[in-house]
Amino acid sequence: MVDIIERKRDGYALSEEEIGFFVKGYTDGEIPDYQASAFLMAVVWRGMDEKETAILTDCMMHSGETVDLSRISGIKVDKHSTGGVGDKTSLVLGPLVAACGGKLAKMSGRGLGHTGGTLDKMESIPGCRVNLTEGEFIEQVNRIGMAIIGQTAEIDPADKKLYALRDVTATVESIPLIASSIMSKKLASGSDAILLDVKYGSGAFMKNVSEAKKLAEAMVSIGKHLGRDTRALITSMEEPLGMAVGNILEVKEAVETLEGNGPRDLVELVTKAGGVMLEQSRIVSSIGEGEARIAKAISDGSGYAKLKEFVAAQGGDVSYLDDLGKFRTAPYAHEVRAETPGYITRIDCLGIGLSAMKLGAGRAELGDEIDPTAGIVLNKKVGDYVEEGTLLATAYTSKEGMEGIYSDVLGCFVISRKKRVAPALIRDYIAG
Amino acid sequence: MVDIIERKRDGYALSEEEIGFFVKGYTDGEIPDYQASAFLMAVVWRGMDEKETAILTDCMMHSGETVDLSRISGIKVDKHSTGGVGDKTSLVLGPLVAACGGKLAKMSGRGLGHTGGTLDKMESIPGCRVNLTEGEFIEQVNRIGMAIIGQTAEIDPADKKLYALRDVTATVESIPLIASSIMSKKLASGSDAILLDVKYGSGAFMKNVSEAKKLAEAMVSIGKHLGRDTRALITSMEEPLGMAVGNILEVKEAVETLEGNGPRDLVELVTKAGGVMLEQSRIVSSIGEGEARIAKAISDGSGYAKLKEFVAAQGGDVSYLDDLGKFRTAPYAHEVRAETPGYITRIDCLGIGLSAMKLGAGRAELGDEIDPTAGIVLNKKVGDYVEEGTLLATAYTSKEGMEGIYSDVLGCFVISRKKRVAPALIRDYIAG
Repeated sequence: MVDIIERKRDGYALSEEEIGFFVKGYTDGEIPDYQASAFLMAVVWRGMDEKETAILTDCMMHSGETVDLSRISGIKVDKHSTGGVGDKTSLVLGPLVAACGGKLAKMSGRGLGHTGGTLDKMESIPGCRVNLTEGEFIEQVNRIGMAIIGQTAEIDPADKKLYALRDVTATVESIPLIASSIMSKKLASGSDAILLDVKYGSGAFMKNVSEAKKLAEAMVSIGKHLGRDTRALITSMEEPLGMAVGNILEVKEAVETLEGNGPRDLVELVTKAGGVMLEQSRIVSSIGEGEARIAKAISDGSGYAKLKEFVAAQGGDVSYLDDLGKFRTAPYAHEVRAETPGYITRIDCLGIGLSAMKLGAGRAELGDEIDPTAGIVLNKKVGDYVEEGTLLATAYTSKEGMEGIYSDVLGCFVISRKKRVAPALIRDYIAG
Repeated sequence: MVDIIERKRDGYALSEEEIGFFVKGYTDGEIPDYQASAFLMAVVWRGMDEKETAILTDCMMHSGETVDLSRISGIKVDKHSTGGVGDKTSLVLGPLVAACGGKLAKMSGRGLGHTGGTLDKMESIPGCRVNLTEGEFIEQVNRIGMAIIGQTAEIDPADKKLYALRDVTATVESIPLIASSIMSKKLASGSDAILLDVKYGSGAFMKNVSEAKKLAEAMVSIGKHLGRDTRALITSMEEPLGMAVGNILEVKEAVETLEGNGPRDLVELVTKAGGVMLEQSRIVSSIGEGEARIAKAISDGSGYAKLKEFVAAQGGDVSYLDDLGKFRTAPYAHEVRAETPGYITRIDCLGIGLSAMKLGAGRAELGDEIDPTAGIVLNKKVGDYVEEGTLLATAYTSKEGMEGIYSDVLGCFVISRKKRVAPALIRDYIAG
């Protein structure tokens, strides 16, 4: 192992044997943490080329069980987002792709975050469960085209161990390490084609477009080396996606979007992403054609019908979807209003995310309870003009004494006399 | 600690508080190995500036006991060599400096190496002991000007722990880490002035002059920052120093040198080093004057008299020094002769060191027994002309079946038709 650390430290590319030795040895507990962390820091320093990164991913992916989706007919396509604030994309995109004939067999992790993940959002619909058996999961995808469940198999133990170590040794920030961590899990969960939604901006892990693009290119290259059709969109998290941030709030927005009343940015994202996924599924022959199919699935209601079919299949009470008023609402609502007139030039996305977490929408530590009613609904987005007193956002919570949230949320809005056009949501598309 | 790793990873200079937190926390066992190794790799990558390196050294030095030499009158001067093959300098230089009025209170480590260290060489003289009490040590330096003992105090535990970790995490090769490791131990052992003999070449840790110079400059800078007069010589280890490699063999050469019959390179080194040390001791006002005093101490026999006084004080039988024939000799001697005529253009110094170790002169692991009679005596050095059949070297050992050593040693000599002048032994002098 010392030789391997030394070779990486000195900037050499490692062989398949060397990387395999490290991943296996570390996962098995034969290589101690202190050698692994020195190695990881050497990787942060020297990087890894495309081939090394692909080998690392392959070794990690095979460190545990991999999911066999071969009993599902057709091309299985999956979407993965690197995470952001107000990201309810899966709940909208999944039904739209499935309504157009795509097959989406998604396994989701639970993880930490400002607001819950897709599993938490699903569970905020009464009755909806995410713990299907493997048999139910496969049957459901074959029957209705989609299913979303929590991870069942012991997927990618190498990543679990490596990520825990990276977290405490300042070795998280490395494109090859981030890329292999995401892709090894994604590839282990068995889909044939993957669309990555790599977010950038204050509310995302990658703070700027160029870093996000590097990460996306690294992941697309991994997919290419390992024979899976992988594409990526680079999308903005400079402000929250859509208007709703928080579990039930986002489910409602997902329903409204499928009913044709979605916020412009979310509609743009699901249309583009769905177009790519339909092309990856060979259902259409061009992304443009795919985008048209997605737009039609919104306008003709087939996407919304698919959402209900999907929720019902997983045990959820669809009457809540038809009557959004049935959902519980938080007992406290704090309205935040503009104190000066002008144009909104910036909404601090990370600030909104942290505020939502404070309100109870997210999980700071594994095991924390999520309040499905908590969160923030924006009334205005970047580029909008407001008068003094215009409602900017409403903060929902079950907690008493959260008056301080007013200034937190207000502080996230930058209002100026000069108009700023909201930047493009989709900054790039990387097809490898 | 994660913040500290992160700051170093991102290339920032660390504060006194941060470095102190790391050294104390790691020595106390509060910071785990895996964070320390990630930190060390970040230091290998980003380096440390002069101030950081001095702070690190200071913290390491104070991680354990420091030796109080205040009961020794006058300026205490010490020499430290970064190690090489055939380096018996201390046994010659110590008596010469002491004969001229210098005070040398030397604590030596035992360590690994191709041949033994100074302690092993001393112990190859019957009766000579290196385990004086602190009282005896100080009394002896006051009385005769010099003493050399093994480390008594729990000096620099931070270095022991860090070095053990660096050894298994490929984080040895870093100028600030090497410099602080050497200097923290040296400063903890209490001398007022330090002369460093930084070796370069195939037989040394630093393989080339420029790396050796960087290390020397870093150490001289540490001394300056911490208020100790520190100087350095950069000297060649492109071929062994002198002719003898191995414990008793080197003691004999040391005696011969003090008797005025030393090899040219060893005489040159002790004269220059002694000149600097006498100037550091304020006994002379220039290095040139110091060199003249050292030359005189060789020619008038006062250096040799001091060696006998020193050996006798530490219990050694000086009759061995007066009659070198009394020393045990190895039962097997393998003569190595030139197979072609020509000029010696290179002697592989590392090869000679490894051969000496094979013969029994060194220690591959702590606890290994050393054979004091084993080693190699060169008959020729770089620049010498040899005929076919001329004796190049003799290999001494107590081991049977070492015939293979012939080709090992022969292979260390490169003989060519074109003469190559031996490179200068002393390449640089760094006074800060």
